[in-house]
Amino acid sequence: MGIHIIAEFQGVDPGKISKVEKIQEVLDRVIAKSGLHAVSSSFYQFEPYGVSAVYLLSESHLSVHTWPERGYLDLDIFTCGEDGPALKAFQLLKEEFQPKSIKKRIIRRGNP
Amino acid sequence: MGIHIIAEFQGVDPGKISKVEKIQEVLDRVIAKSGLHAVSSSFYQFEPYGVSAVYLLSESHLSVHTWPERGYLDLDIFTCGEDGPALKAFQLLKEEFQPKSIKKRIIRRGNP
Repeated sequence: MGIHIIAEFQGVDPGKISKVEKIQEVLDRVIAKSGLHAVSSSFYQFEPYGVSAVYLLSESHLSVHTWPERGYLDLDIFTCGEDGPALKAFQLLKEEFQPKSIKKRIIRRGNP
Repeated sequence: MGIHIIAEFQGVDPGKISKVEKIQEVLDRVIAKSGLHAVSSSFYQFEPYGVSAVYLLSESHLSVHTWPERGYLDLDIFTCGEDGPALKAFQLLKEEFQPKSIKKRIIRRGNP
């Protein structure tokens, strides 16, 4: 079974989530530190601000969608195998984005 | 608010979900027909079979992970804006993959 962490970060500094460059820098760092393995990554810059980022992982995927005007970020971390790297990535993302509040759901899914 | 459809397809013909080429062909077609807009797509071929596919959409993202040896496919469709295209994509994917059973969850999330 895999773990899918679905989270909403609220009250995030808009400066941290407005542009692809910043988001990419954070996500690259978090993925490397957490022990996940990125196969590829794609980004979309909304104008004037707002980012979508999707990382294909050998463990499944990680995605972020941001609404800077509302200090809001939607996060998915879906991995198969051990839970540890996904939970570590989540912890690191909290530290990076420092949301004022978080809504989190964990779903069990994947290889039956 | 956005819609996130999380589904597990079981009892899928392994021949339909073993290789990137077939998955890509199906997903490209379904996304075009459903009115979603792909910004980019990434694929990973597991050996000897099994596929991960992630599409970054201007509406958010769509992903598929397959375990052909178990006839199993994990699907996410997350879109912001109207629900229609996501629901249509889900219906088309059912028709394409013809699973014997489906477990589906719908989560409301996104721009608050």
